[in-house]
Amino acid sequence: MPNPKAKEKSRKSEPAPRGGGRELVLGIDLGATKVVSALVDPSGAIVQRSERRRHENDGPGHVLEVVVQSARESLAGLSSLPARAGIAVAAQVDPDRGTVVYSPNLGWRDQPLTAPLSRELGMRVSAVNDARAATLAEWRFGAGRGESNFFCLVLGTGVGGSAVAGGVLLEGGTHAVGEVGHLTIVAGGRRCHCPNTGCFEAYVGGWGIAERARIAVASYPPERGTLLRSGDAGTTITAETVFRAARAGDALAGHLVDETEGYLEDGVVSVVNAFNPSLLVLAGGLLSGRPEWVDLVARAVIGRCQPAAARVRVTAGKLGEDAGVIGAATWARERAAPGRPAPPEGTAGR
Amino acid sequence: MPNPKAKEKSRKSEPAPRGGGRELVLGIDLGATKVVSALVDPSGAIVQRSERRRHENDGPGHVLEVVVQSARESLAGLSSLPARAGIAVAAQVDPDRGTVVYSPNLGWRDQPLTAPLSRELGMRVSAVNDARAATLAEWRFGAGRGESNFFCLVLGTGVGGSAVAGGVLLEGGTHAVGEVGHLTIVAGGRRCHCPNTGCFEAYVGGWGIAERARIAVASYPPERGTLLRSGDAGTTITAETVFRAARAGDALAGHLVDETEGYLEDGVVSVVNAFNPSLLVLAGGLLSGRPEWVDLVARAVIGRCQPAAARVRVTAGKLGEDAGVIGAATWARERAAPGRPAPPEGTAGR
Repeated sequence: MPNPKAKEKSRKSEPAPRGGGRELVLGIDLGATKVVSALVDPSGAIVQRSERRRHENDGPGHVLEVVVQSARESLAGLSSLPARAGIAVAAQVDPDRGTVVYSPNLGWRDQPLTAPLSRELGMRVSAVNDARAATLAEWRFGAGRGESNFFCLVLGTGVGGSAVAGGVLLEGGTHAVGEVGHLTIVAGGRRCHCPNTGCFEAYVGGWGIAERARIAVASYPPERGTLLRSGDAGTTITAETVFRAARAGDALAGHLVDETEGYLEDGVVSVVNAFNPSLLVLAGGLLSGRPEWVDLVARAVIGRCQPAAARVRVTAGKLGEDAGVIGAATWARERAAPGRPAPPEGTAGR
Repeated sequence: MPNPKAKEKSRKSEPAPRGGGRELVLGIDLGATKVVSALVDPSGAIVQRSERRRHENDGPGHVLEVVVQSARESLAGLSSLPARAGIAVAAQVDPDRGTVVYSPNLGWRDQPLTAPLSRELGMRVSAVNDARAATLAEWRFGAGRGESNFFCLVLGTGVGGSAVAGGVLLEGGTHAVGEVGHLTIVAGGRRCHCPNTGCFEAYVGGWGIAERARIAVASYPPERGTLLRSGDAGTTITAETVFRAARAGDALAGHLVDETEGYLEDGVVSVVNAFNPSLLVLAGGLLSGRPEWVDLVARAVIGRCQPAAARVRVTAGKLGEDAGVIGAATWARERAAPGRPAPPEGTAGR
């Protein structure tokens, strides 16, 4: 790991945006439903940020417009633009070509990403999978600091993950390692947004919970209770709605949460048995609605994993929903660092 | 498959361990039902081997006696003993302490392994998980040669696996990475030998197939057909029995094989989505009964994995059932190699 302090020194002559000498990098986090951007300094601190805004998931053109708006908001008032940006996407990303290979939840395939953003923003842009970005951020600045073997499981609209193994952030053969949202946990189960069925995220991802709730509400009218009242005839039910209704004592919502927690255990046991991390970090937006999932997961792992693998610590991420932007910026920064495989907009940061 | 008898004969007239100067290492492969040993040279070639013998899985004391007999058989006629041995075990192994941490299929926990074998054999012994050994062997000498990102899936009595990622043989936090036999593929499913339920190997491992067949035979007497006749009232049915009966046209056996292949797909899609290998090597004893599984798996991966991950080549291992002994010997050799993290009987070979 090159020392970011050393880099700082060598760039001292640059006219510095805010706080002299700290090279800022723009981080963008593009999720299946939301975009947020921030300026991140070398210590992983956010210096300035945009509002978190929803996008309509109405195709790359429109979504990228929202991305550019978000980026510009976080750049507002700077005397000079940062040289680099990183964008974390809920997608399988090809960092070398700067494209989205496939995003089940955005519905994109082979979509150029860094080139159009570079043109719009006037800076070099690097792309990375969002779970990999969150993992990098937690590794450098958060709950995974100093760990050689850890897995970061991101529970959001989808379920993602990424692993540090033997002190290296894994990439896989095509930059798609750690896609544990697409572990089959229910043979012959629900259709996923990906080509598989019975996937972990089709049960435990935000969209999976919402869809299961909508189906349940439609099928069991007598039990609708608060869960129905919270939505518009069931069509706008989200995972958060379900969590809230369960807390308010709604029977159907309670049942759905119980079921979801069973599937969460099934998936987490798989992740830990497969990757054998020393530390499992739980991150992602869903956790804010169910912080008790950290303890639930810790118990499941001890009770159900193979004994050697069960010796894993379980903790919540420290960076919360900022992990994505911090990781995106850090990814871009580390790719630009001296001594790394030189970029033609590429070569995975290792 | 070299003929051990012929080897022995030629050895009698040859006092030195063939071709003096090539350092031989003893490799031992201890599975859930069988033991085999061999002398392995630095090129991964087997110079002399024991018969493959069954053990009764009747506790560490008895099983280790069989291991020692097997080892001695493969050392017969040597003028000087090799300095090192490696033992691959169907278990979670602590290579630093030389113990079996846990073996669901042997039923062992915290069992000293290398110390008693060292005493009996008069040489230094290193231990390694059997799937990791097979992976190492295929990486150095077989189907995975030169690959930076590959996964070796071992389909035997149990299901195991191990990964090379970024050019490194992964270990995990407690030497238990790649235990994909214990991915949950059927939420709420069959009890496994491990603490989890619904595990991949409880459906697709040799013991899982046999157990499912015995239950099916007991439940559906009218359909027993050749599957029943092949066993002793169902109690001695094995995975091989089921495969043979299916080939002979037995309806129930055919149904069981179809079901098993569905579960195999579920598990393999999980493995590829999780580890994103460029190459998936299929190994293990079950493959000899179902060589067509290589094509089946290749189709499943293309059809059901995420697009980036689906770009994986699928092939059978090149070393067959010798992968275990070759890998065990290679493991021991590489741990002893100069320039590696120095052993006090330890430090994972990287």
